[in-house]
Amino acid sequence: MIAKLSEEEAQELLQRNELGRLGCIADDRPYVVPVNYLYDGDSVYIHSLPGRKIAALRRHPQACLQVDEIERERSWRSVIAFGRYEEIGDEQRRAYYLKQLLRRFPHLTPVESRLVINAGPVEVILFAIHIEEVTGLKEEW
Amino acid sequence: MIAKLSEEEAQELLQRNELGRLGCIADDRPYVVPVNYLYDGDSVYIHSLPGRKIAALRRHPQACLQVDEIERERSWRSVIAFGRYEEIGDEQRRAYYLKQLLRRFPHLTPVESRLVINAGPVEVILFAIHIEEVTGLKEEW
Repeated sequence: MIAKLSEEEAQELLQRNELGRLGCIADDRPYVVPVNYLYDGDSVYIHSLPGRKIAALRRHPQACLQVDEIERERSWRSVIAFGRYEEIGDEQRRAYYLKQLLRRFPHLTPVESRLVINAGPVEVILFAIHIEEVTGLKEEW
Repeated sequence: MIAKLSEEEAQELLQRNELGRLGCIADDRPYVVPVNYLYDGDSVYIHSLPGRKIAALRRHPQACLQVDEIERERSWRSVIAFGRYEEIGDEQRRAYYLKQLLRRFPHLTPVESRLVINAGPVEVILFAIHIEEVTGLKEEW
């Protein structure tokens, strides 16, 4: 039986996970990459080095984050959260969320960690996806 | 160190996995869902019940399949394969690929299995993504 997740179940799934797949549109094609994220109930926060994903999101800010818990073939839950990309440039907000991300994912690359600690040249992109809609499905066997 | 996967490494990763995330464009927004797939070196084959993903792919046939192997935070590989959606209507090809999918994923839903066995009314959608480009990244620590 495949059934819809309630809003609460979908929110809980987003809260208890930290690995998802970010979908965006690059050159009129879908583009999907795995990301670590932090969710505060309204937005997800993600850090990234500049590259294809950032270029795509700047051009087409509509994004989605798909997160699932797959136990086995017939037992899974999957949530998709749609929202808009916002690049966080403000130094105070950057410092705050980078610290949170660093606490949760202590293995930021050495370059990234150094940037956080020394507040050096801005090379790490920090962005939010402000969630507008969350839906989810589950199958139970 | 993040590095590009060679074409061979990317192909091997697609071959040895069977769970990926399918990206498509639905109403001008990216849409991502987990799927089981079968890869024959040229195309991936996926079955699905009708729904949002199929409606989106019919309208905008450019799709991608993202597949990853994430060991831990700093040790992962991820591949993205871009290609075009083709719905398989021909009964002989349908029967062939559905049998392959059923062998690999014995837990098609009862409805789907019955359709395969009895060649009953066509409700299960079988489609291919014909791969045009494969790229991948890895991080090793």
